[in-house]
Amino acid sequence: MPTTTTTPRRENYAGKRVVITGGLGFIGSNLAHALVAAGARVTIIDALLPAYGGNRVNLAGIEEAVALIDGNILDADLIERAVTGADVVFHLAGQVGYVDAKDKPFVDLDYNGRGTLILLEALRQSAPQARLLFASSRLVYGPITAIPVREDHPTNPLSLYGIHKLLGEKYIGYYAHEFGIHGVSVRIPNPYGPRQQMKHSKYSIVGWFIRQALDNQTITVFGDGSQERDYVYIDDIVEALLRLPLSGKAGEAYNIGSRERVRFVDMVDTIIRVAGSGRKEHVPWPADYEKNETGDYTADTSKITAATQWEPQVGLTEGIRKTVEYYQKNREYYW
Amino acid sequence: MPTTTTTPRRENYAGKRVVITGGLGFIGSNLAHALVAAGARVTIIDALLPAYGGNRVNLAGIEEAVALIDGNILDADLIERAVTGADVVFHLAGQVGYVDAKDKPFVDLDYNGRGTLILLEALRQSAPQARLLFASSRLVYGPITAIPVREDHPTNPLSLYGIHKLLGEKYIGYYAHEFGIHGVSVRIPNPYGPRQQMKHSKYSIVGWFIRQALDNQTITVFGDGSQERDYVYIDDIVEALLRLPLSGKAGEAYNIGSRERVRFVDMVDTIIRVAGSGRKEHVPWPADYEKNETGDYTADTSKITAATQWEPQVGLTEGIRKTVEYYQKNREYYW
Repeated sequence: MPTTTTTPRRENYAGKRVVITGGLGFIGSNLAHALVAAGARVTIIDALLPAYGGNRVNLAGIEEAVALIDGNILDADLIERAVTGADVVFHLAGQVGYVDAKDKPFVDLDYNGRGTLILLEALRQSAPQARLLFASSRLVYGPITAIPVREDHPTNPLSLYGIHKLLGEKYIGYYAHEFGIHGVSVRIPNPYGPRQQMKHSKYSIVGWFIRQALDNQTITVFGDGSQERDYVYIDDIVEALLRLPLSGKAGEAYNIGSRERVRFVDMVDTIIRVAGSGRKEHVPWPADYEKNETGDYTADTSKITAATQWEPQVGLTEGIRKTVEYYQKNREYYW
Repeated sequence: MPTTTTTPRRENYAGKRVVITGGLGFIGSNLAHALVAAGARVTIIDALLPAYGGNRVNLAGIEEAVALIDGNILDADLIERAVTGADVVFHLAGQVGYVDAKDKPFVDLDYNGRGTLILLEALRQSAPQARLLFASSRLVYGPITAIPVREDHPTNPLSLYGIHKLLGEKYIGYYAHEFGIHGVSVRIPNPYGPRQQMKHSKYSIVGWFIRQALDNQTITVFGDGSQERDYVYIDDIVEALLRLPLSGKAGEAYNIGSRERVRFVDMVDTIIRVAGSGRKEHVPWPADYEKNETGDYTADTSKITAATQWEPQVGLTEGIRKTVEYYQKNREYYW
């Protein structure tokens, strides 16, 4: 696929062979829906590991249109067979929670570090022409020293999750430079929207709060909730993911973000207002949480806009409304 | 061990229990000699992996004074037993060559990444009070954008070796912040001196050229050899390693360097002059080597000097002279 100089469009994916690792998860499955709609031939690799975000119901409506491989990112032979002949690979498989990473450091190293290296070696050996998109995280930054955060901000992660996402980015950079593998990384801040797992609070605070509100429960806010976060709606994430392999620069990492500075407590209030149920309660910060507090976060997204003309389209209230509607309809599959 | 505010001295190690991973190698064995002389109780862990730098003759004269464990850094149980009760741990075990890392990416990930994580977990579980020194590399920087290079220079390694050393540094920073493990990293540029392996050219170009000169062979110089490097003599490295655990700041990385800007070709000329044999020949750069060329490198060493009062003492000519003398005497054990 040649790099586009005009706005990359979904039509570029028509007829293309696309592989999504972790394609049953939140972001991967939404991406799969968009790719099927665009006419791509989609293969999903997912191990459906317990506690992670994979859910077969996420493919409802496109089950017949995608090939599903029950496989693990650490299975090098399987990965190599799966990517052979691919035009684009979206690498979303990984250990998801930064809290879990602390308790299982080697699991996180394997899934977020070694898994990405296995995939890159597979591309180098068997699909060197494929484009690659790696889902990284804003947690690569660690303590924030300047807002909005540019991609050249220092990277001193406060979690093994962030360290291993950074490792994946460095692999992407190295394989681009050394072997010409066209990979790009995207640093995703707080993602939310339909098809996110809702069984526990560890992966998405927005999703969990929506569940609590829909269940008419009390949402706990640490401190005054004045810390600013960058909540990005899934449709904006999918659009960025689709564009970056087409016109991002090989080896580079790109921020995405909402361009809204939203205080944590305002996100909570929006959820309660849109859901029409639930309430909030302020409690003191536990010591353990404060240690992982990075400070306010808002992404500078000028780099991806310059490269792909991507712009976030969905504001917080609209995104929460769409998400609430989805779970009101599909609650039985996620609760 | 309390942090010293005055110049940290070797006497601080008297009676202390010290563990050196990779202690049969070049830097580890020289460090062991210094520690034994200072009255430390030294335990060495070394797997003596073929092709790496371990060599039993490196302990000549102190064999009876150190405990030697034949073990691998990936053996978590063994590492945990070995560090229990330690006051200071010097972590020098690793895959050594950036060229080998390209061909064996997972070996490099295991020995330089996972091995460091295993050691940190062992300290967290069984020796949380121990001080830790991690041997990193100037190759964490990648392409050099500003000279002399400060520690906050961008880190975009051009090798898996550099990526995994950077990973080790991030682990050190995280375990300091999250668990209070007092680890520091030292970014070593081109080291040279006695007890370095001389069997092949992959780990030390200075050592290899000394061998070629002593064998009266022709030393090959790519291009005009005008690229600047930072060659640090082993005694200066050992002194930095001894001081950093005592007065470096937990979680931080420190450069060391010679403070000399030495052109590659001048290093070669010095070797030939001091050895009194050998000659040089200029040849064009092979394409593969140019790809790994990072540009001129000289370290800014003000950070370690501020923290420990360390200063390099040995200039290039003196260092080469001492090194040549050592191998003239001990050639049979290294050739």
